[in-house]
Amino acid sequence: MLVQAYGAYAGDQPLEPLAIKRRQPGPHDVQIDIAFCGVCHSDLHQVRSEWAGTQFPCVPGHEIVGRVTAVGEHVHTFQPGDLVGVGCIVDSCRHCPDCEEGLENYCDNMVGTYNAPTQDEPGWTLGGYSQKIVVHEHYVLRIRHPEDQLAAVAPLLCAGITTYSPLRHWNVGPGKRVGVVGIGGLGHMGIKIAHALGAHVVAFTTSESKREAAKALGADEVVVSRHTEEMAVQAKRLDFILNTVAAPHKLDAFLGLLKRDGTMALVGAPASPHPSPNVFNLITKRRALAGSMIGGIPETQEMLDFCAEHGIVADIELIRANEINTAYERMLKGDVKYRFVIDNGTLIA
Amino acid sequence: MLVQAYGAYAGDQPLEPLAIKRRQPGPHDVQIDIAFCGVCHSDLHQVRSEWAGTQFPCVPGHEIVGRVTAVGEHVHTFQPGDLVGVGCIVDSCRHCPDCEEGLENYCDNMVGTYNAPTQDEPGWTLGGYSQKIVVHEHYVLRIRHPEDQLAAVAPLLCAGITTYSPLRHWNVGPGKRVGVVGIGGLGHMGIKIAHALGAHVVAFTTSESKREAAKALGADEVVVSRHTEEMAVQAKRLDFILNTVAAPHKLDAFLGLLKRDGTMALVGAPASPHPSPNVFNLITKRRALAGSMIGGIPETQEMLDFCAEHGIVADIELIRANEINTAYERMLKGDVKYRFVIDNGTLIA
Repeated sequence: MLVQAYGAYAGDQPLEPLAIKRRQPGPHDVQIDIAFCGVCHSDLHQVRSEWAGTQFPCVPGHEIVGRVTAVGEHVHTFQPGDLVGVGCIVDSCRHCPDCEEGLENYCDNMVGTYNAPTQDEPGWTLGGYSQKIVVHEHYVLRIRHPEDQLAAVAPLLCAGITTYSPLRHWNVGPGKRVGVVGIGGLGHMGIKIAHALGAHVVAFTTSESKREAAKALGADEVVVSRHTEEMAVQAKRLDFILNTVAAPHKLDAFLGLLKRDGTMALVGAPASPHPSPNVFNLITKRRALAGSMIGGIPETQEMLDFCAEHGIVADIELIRANEINTAYERMLKGDVKYRFVIDNGTLIA
Repeated sequence: MLVQAYGAYAGDQPLEPLAIKRRQPGPHDVQIDIAFCGVCHSDLHQVRSEWAGTQFPCVPGHEIVGRVTAVGEHVHTFQPGDLVGVGCIVDSCRHCPDCEEGLENYCDNMVGTYNAPTQDEPGWTLGGYSQKIVVHEHYVLRIRHPEDQLAAVAPLLCAGITTYSPLRHWNVGPGKRVGVVGIGGLGHMGIKIAHALGAHVVAFTTSESKREAAKALGADEVVVSRHTEEMAVQAKRLDFILNTVAAPHKLDAFLGLLKRDGTMALVGAPASPHPSPNVFNLITKRRALAGSMIGGIPETQEMLDFCAEHGIVADIELIRANEINTAYERMLKGDVKYRFVIDNGTLIA
């Protein structure tokens, strides 16, 4: 099955229209007409070969929403017409301890939605900047939001679960003070979700200009991290920090804001290392610096349901497929509030 | 009360005999004749001004064991003749959340056994390289080991609790695989305690020569960390790592050995930073890099009782007070198995 897509033939070339093959649905497969696909910073890193191992042609996109058009004979939980989503994971071993606990995101054989080995042509997965995708039913999520919110639901599949999973894992909720560092694609979801979980949310930004926006997203307090006095007020007061900033920065400034036994979880991986954290900061209050990567399939469904129940979607700017290269440039400048989403209907020239 | 001690008048001078004042016991104080005092690496850092803020004269020593000689009128839990210990803490605020939870070690106003502000002369605390010490009863521990083990009990007051506390906090026990990095004063206690807690212990050392010694201490496996193949065998297999090495080293090599959700706790603070840890290592398995500092008073008593019950003491080399400068030099070369302990009876010239 040939479908229209948008991708790149090399790391130094812009994305352009191309045709890709999708497999015929197998017994456990779900075939999806993609309505919208969010634009994640990872897409840019991968397609521009800023991360190792990009295979070309590369079709990015792992914030996929759309409608089921066909299902394999053994698929009973989905049927044509269902609103569904696909996130960062399209396969895993399904029998390791991680998979058995529903943490497919930590499976050693997790297959990413793009640029991961597959038996399908051309030998690596191709993502959601395309008209259709065929995915094993285990990795398909049900969407319970109203259909008119569908475009804004797309970013939940990566930005939503990447923030929801650590917030839940580290027990963010009523009575907890949680910091969210960075107010971008991930951070703006982190603020919304932490607020909906009932926590007291302190947002950290380098931009004075984002102060009001952060409050509108649900932050109870906003700290401009360059202001030493504002930072000092938060010292030793936070139970947990969700740090969404991938650019190298001083972790110590934030570790010092944690209470005893507090954790700062990083969800962004910098291209070059952060300055080495001060071990005294960890030792003197038994603090932890941790990492977290997307989330498992059951938790992604839980997150989607939680967001539907609380009326949470991403703040997005909808673009046509042929605007993707411009969108990347704007994303690099932080010029988006807060996520670009491709209208996949525009893939047909 | 004037007592004989050993200390230094400046960071670049050797330790020498000196006389110091101890306060008369107040209503809640316990006066102790110090029998033995362990020699901790921190002693050397502090007395040589390698850490900031050393006050001189400086009398180090926070692994103190001895016998009660007098108690204040309100002290009911100790009486003259009791075998007792004093560790790294001689005071704290006793009303903050940390103190109320018995975690005086994390109290913002914790008073260290030496070089910490006090109303006693000369204005900072003076440690266990001395004949006597007077301590508030709250910070005095009961020793239940046989008296002939007393010298070897001394290092439990710092090296013992510094390793016991994180092993307990991160639930090391039967069915868990725990790594202990470094086989020195702290590490040798970590191996003994983790073994007694019922865990499968993997010891890591840079020295081929320590392989047999580590097994004798209770390690089930010993890995020479310079051997890439031996390290690879442990990849993603450890539930917890206790890292006792204070010298800057590559943390990534060990973080990669943790299972998903595993934690590596650092108990040594390097003088210059470790190479910055790779964030991918944290993110891809939701691992954590944490710190831990000594332990609270109730947990220190628990550790002493646990060690008494399991027949655990430190492996020590007993020295005379006037051998302390030589002992420091040997300690710097790693030439001690595994802890020097001063016989405080030799303080009298």
